[in-house]
Amino acid sequence: MSQNIIQSSIIQQQCYADVDQNKNHITKNIEQATNSGSQLIVLSELHSQLYFCQQKKVQNFELAESIHGITSEWLSNLAKKNRIIIVGSLFEKTLDERFYNTALVFDVDGSLAGIYRKMHIPEGNSYFEKYYFSPGDLGFTPIKTSLLTLGIQICWDQWFPEGARLLKLAGADVLIYPSAIGWENNDSLAEKKRQLDAWITIQRSHAIANSLPLICANRQGLETSESSSINFWGNSFICDSFGKVLQQAGSSNNEIVTAKIDIDERNQIQEIWPFINDRRTDAYENLSSTNVNLKCDSG
Amino acid sequence: MSQNIIQSSIIQQQCYADVDQNKNHITKNIEQATNSGSQLIVLSELHSQLYFCQQKKVQNFELAESIHGITSEWLSNLAKKNRIIIVGSLFEKTLDERFYNTALVFDVDGSLAGIYRKMHIPEGNSYFEKYYFSPGDLGFTPIKTSLLTLGIQICWDQWFPEGARLLKLAGADVLIYPSAIGWENNDSLAEKKRQLDAWITIQRSHAIANSLPLICANRQGLETSESSSINFWGNSFICDSFGKVLQQAGSSNNEIVTAKIDIDERNQIQEIWPFINDRRTDAYENLSSTNVNLKCDSG
Repeated sequence: MSQNIIQSSIIQQQCYADVDQNKNHITKNIEQATNSGSQLIVLSELHSQLYFCQQKKVQNFELAESIHGITSEWLSNLAKKNRIIIVGSLFEKTLDERFYNTALVFDVDGSLAGIYRKMHIPEGNSYFEKYYFSPGDLGFTPIKTSLLTLGIQICWDQWFPEGARLLKLAGADVLIYPSAIGWENNDSLAEKKRQLDAWITIQRSHAIANSLPLICANRQGLETSESSSINFWGNSFICDSFGKVLQQAGSSNNEIVTAKIDIDERNQIQEIWPFINDRRTDAYENLSSTNVNLKCDSG
Repeated sequence: MSQNIIQSSIIQQQCYADVDQNKNHITKNIEQATNSGSQLIVLSELHSQLYFCQQKKVQNFELAESIHGITSEWLSNLAKKNRIIIVGSLFEKTLDERFYNTALVFDVDGSLAGIYRKMHIPEGNSYFEKYYFSPGDLGFTPIKTSLLTLGIQICWDQWFPEGARLLKLAGADVLIYPSAIGWENNDSLAEKKRQLDAWITIQRSHAIANSLPLICANRQGLETSESSSINFWGNSFICDSFGKVLQQAGSSNNEIVTAKIDIDERNQIQEIWPFINDRRTDAYENLSSTNVNLKCDSG
């Protein structure tokens, strides 16, 4: 059924301090992707700004905005004008002054179809996200649009099979991962390869485990703060419902990554590989328990 | 700390109708692996027999035996004689006549350290396991030995991230997957490649998600029944705690696959990638729920 094939595009980009420069790049590339027939566009995490989480700086909280602010207005207009679905991202500030790392989905009529607030928040050198973001409070809830239902996760979420599985169980047609991940400059080539490979592998595994196509949009390029730098590794990719990579970007270019995802392919796959049907829900209780003994030392 | 590096070996083999032939092959190969310094030996699923689940035949239930039967005695003696840990497998019949697909772990003194009963049971053309096996009733419980704690899963379990995660949470030092999986003869080369790639990818992802090394022992070779045939695809492999493959067998040879697994490597990895610490146990409840609305049709 041809209506269940959705041509999808990722805008992989380098981000700059100049918000307008980032937005202009996105606007132009969305138009180009739309002209080539894409109906679903995925942007990378926090695409309108430098990755400000490299440093803890109280001034950076001024970058936060409402989900009904100027970024939303811009994305809504782009979705409506081009009759496409857009997955965007921003640093959200709520009316009661909570801060989230939030993805927004706009439907083809420009309406806000739903939002997802990043559930798993990292904290480490150059990624001080716990300083900026509250852990998401909306759970793992797919977002319905007029074309398909989106299961959205953001960056660090991609290392957790739990999120992908919950989105599958709740009816997602596709898994989508806006990201901002990169190498430290002093990582060896072998270490860079190892990290990139693990990152692609774990995401492909979510497609396989859940018989769903997956779209991962990462930023690219070097961003330097006063104390550190990150070389965002690009490699945005789209894979099919058995984890086969359909298209993948390089590590250091602005690119539009386009592929057709087949929403119905899962039906054939699940006939041979009916994983969901064989789950042992009677024995999974400890997955949500905080009382499991975690052995930290094998000595 | 050198005592936390465990040289491990997989005996990848073709299996035949002649049980003694299979056992002799294993005995000889275990001795060879032990002589090369291996302390942990993993055999493939149901290694002493042809894969009888290709057909539903009531006579095949006669292949089942007690976990204190002749297979156990043989494996126990091998473990004790060679001062090694052995992960074996058999078609288990209990005193109350229940039947399981069971893995057995023998410690270096020959004692039975524990058993695992396959939790996820497949059913499909050439894999009629639901006809033979009750779903495991022992949950996801690691097995302690004198050297390390084993998290065992069997074949079809490998497609379920839940099992690996539960074993990690309960203290496993390594994930182990005895397997019997192969291609149908009329699969195209592309389809064969796709399946093998998905199988390796999802298992590597369990290593990555849980910062644990992983050992997967598959059988190899063509086995033909009256109605079907399976070309067991070998490719047994050992990967490290970030999913990097250390050693991998080919698809059509008897081989001993040997690598050193580093039980403490997870400590360095978890410093940078502390996935367990960032899990959202408050939001995972639906993983064990049977009430989630599973949308089967996106139309």
